[in-house]
Amino acid sequence: MPVHYTPPTPESLLPVPGVVLGAAKAAIKKWDRDDVLLVVCHPGTVAAGVFTQNRFCAAPVTVCREHLARGGAMRALVVNAGNANAGTGDAGLADAHAECIAVARLIECAPEEVLPYSTGVIMEPLPVERILAALPAARSAARADGWLAAARAIMTTDTVPKGASRRIDVGGAAVTVTGICKGAGMIHPDMATMLAFMATDAPIAAPLLRDIVREVAGVSFNGATVDGDTSTNDSFVLAATGRAGIAPIASAADPRLGTVRAAIEECAVALAQAIVRDGEGATKFIAIRVEGGKSVDECKRVAFGIAHSPLVKTAFFASDPNLGRIVCAIGNTAAPDTDPAKVSFWLDDVLVVDRGGRAASYREEDGQRVMKQEEITVRVDLGRGKAAATVWTCDFSHDYVSINADYRS
Amino acid sequence: MPVHYTPPTPESLLPVPGVVLGAAKAAIKKWDRDDVLLVVCHPGTVAAGVFTQNRFCAAPVTVCREHLARGGAMRALVVNAGNANAGTGDAGLADAHAECIAVARLIECAPEEVLPYSTGVIMEPLPVERILAALPAARSAARADGWLAAARAIMTTDTVPKGASRRIDVGGAAVTVTGICKGAGMIHPDMATMLAFMATDAPIAAPLLRDIVREVAGVSFNGATVDGDTSTNDSFVLAATGRAGIAPIASAADPRLGTVRAAIEECAVALAQAIVRDGEGATKFIAIRVEGGKSVDECKRVAFGIAHSPLVKTAFFASDPNLGRIVCAIGNTAAPDTDPAKVSFWLDDVLVVDRGGRAASYREEDGQRVMKQEEITVRVDLGRGKAAATVWTCDFSHDYVSINADYRS
Repeated sequence: MPVHYTPPTPESLLPVPGVVLGAAKAAIKKWDRDDVLLVVCHPGTVAAGVFTQNRFCAAPVTVCREHLARGGAMRALVVNAGNANAGTGDAGLADAHAECIAVARLIECAPEEVLPYSTGVIMEPLPVERILAALPAARSAARADGWLAAARAIMTTDTVPKGASRRIDVGGAAVTVTGICKGAGMIHPDMATMLAFMATDAPIAAPLLRDIVREVAGVSFNGATVDGDTSTNDSFVLAATGRAGIAPIASAADPRLGTVRAAIEECAVALAQAIVRDGEGATKFIAIRVEGGKSVDECKRVAFGIAHSPLVKTAFFASDPNLGRIVCAIGNTAAPDTDPAKVSFWLDDVLVVDRGGRAASYREEDGQRVMKQEEITVRVDLGRGKAAATVWTCDFSHDYVSINADYRS
Repeated sequence: MPVHYTPPTPESLLPVPGVVLGAAKAAIKKWDRDDVLLVVCHPGTVAAGVFTQNRFCAAPVTVCREHLARGGAMRALVVNAGNANAGTGDAGLADAHAECIAVARLIECAPEEVLPYSTGVIMEPLPVERILAALPAARSAARADGWLAAARAIMTTDTVPKGASRRIDVGGAAVTVTGICKGAGMIHPDMATMLAFMATDAPIAAPLLRDIVREVAGVSFNGATVDGDTSTNDSFVLAATGRAGIAPIASAADPRLGTVRAAIEECAVALAQAIVRDGEGATKFIAIRVEGGKSVDECKRVAFGIAHSPLVKTAFFASDPNLGRIVCAIGNTAAPDTDPAKVSFWLDDVLVVDRGGRAASYREEDGQRVMKQEEITVRVDLGRGKAAATVWTCDFSHDYVSINADYRS
């Protein structure tokens, strides 16, 4: 069960004018559930996305990049769970293109206006015929209130569907932002994320949308990590249908942009945290904030160093305040000219290391108290600058090993 | 139990003329075993060492660096298990110096000729009084054939003592190399290693000894990883007592140097592999060889990327040929300009990925056969150069989580 996460209800995911979503069964794996999703957007929709930096990126990621590079006009998304279509060479690329062509025929648009997504096992041939056969049923099922069913259809090792929604007032008109995502393992987004799709009816120009996606990914999905493995398929796409009753937002100076951007960021952070809360085998949710760095990159490197240490993660699982392991992780990732005698860290409100050494005030029972919580904040002060960054992770339990030892069976 | 590793016997660890070793009980933790080791070397011994790059390096590491920087004259090593004396600030430094002073008084040498080592829990005050009190007993126990008892005294989560020995003929005279080490978790040496101590009676000049230590560490200990956490205490020291009956080796052009160096490297590789074979919770030993890179660093980065992926490690534990996880790990660590279409990899003799895609010849049952073995070689060809590197790692099992969730209790 996820850590302190209430899955969305049908009512909590607000329809976005100009977007319908439908799921169907393609039996990608031996399961009896929807595993293909078709999202259809109104003509005039523009989209922007960020994708994995993994050199073995999946075929659908390559196709998405090509299609979005044509300006951002977007009419549909087609997603399958159970097979990542990664490490599949030219055949995989042909399969991803075949999906786009089939969807284009079905909804009457250009194949370049379709974005394909895949998630699941890497390096197995995509059963593309079964996906194509399921598309008409997905089209028939498409509804404006289909977000929750869509979130369910893209799950793999996720234990709950994940979604977030905001409705804001922009100059007297309602603007909606809704998003869904999936992901529980192979999570360490790099410039992008697992599979996340968000839409808004705000009429945002494509160049502005691209900036928003990049910036929002940096403070949301790119701060989430479960196991430090950046997947071959990470994708975060944001679509703007323009169907809200407001004038187009075409300038970065438009004060309405900040309002909409804030709602997008709130949803993205909620989705990114949901992935970590539902991390494979997770029993705890840990926020790691590193302050006092010379750059955000430096702070992120130290924060991820703590978040990825198997020794730190197993200590959290055991509720054991074995805090020397955090000291070790900081020491491994801090810049070479970092002065340990200026580094301090806290576990929630408890000062553990005070400028390089164990704090005089630190008592084992205080550390124990915080470590027993299901939500914990580790705060590090590097004592050498003004930059800061926050990442989120989970612990490393027996269930993580079990889940990943059994995943394909 | 370690994977395919036969622990040393008393007879297999050959005495090195000029070195005696003695252990004693200091009750550093609640255990009834020797946990303090004193190694005494003959006057005239020179030593060289490499140490952790962790910014929070332990107090004894700082002191070792200072003492060895004075030219390399070395008379004694004092080691304790159970407490790392790391993250202990100025008090930790004072404790390490106190150990050196006490040993210097005991054996009549300068404190700067003593090297302190500590290994165990980080960030707890060193019970230095108990160590000092145990030193006379360790001195009384010191014997030339004390190597195995010494290897036992420095164990922490190790399940077996680790040692290696070679006797070679150098110009008609016998030269001996013997070493011991410890380490099973927090293993990812960086320019150095866990705790390893080796000695030879070959009379090698200090500058040559420093080169040998650095080079040998690069192809032995620095290729070992259990969990990717570079410890605060990694240290590898090589002492040359000069007691073998041969003329001093003072020039890099001396042909005898290669003979001695090879024996030192063989011992170091055996010790490094022993640590991985006894890795916490290990059920498999995996060698990862990356070839066809533009540089050794590039090959090592990809090899460690595979070795550190929790998803790869759990797949090995499960004997599951979920080889897409290896593809993902390669893609995350390969240089940005790597062409996936030139990358191939093998599992032992089985070609899995042939230039970017699943090999036409690959059959799941062949992958399954290799994955079930206790020793496996992963060979990757990056297809872009002539450099190569090998690293060794183990799998990630339920026992790893159990061991590290319970370590301090």
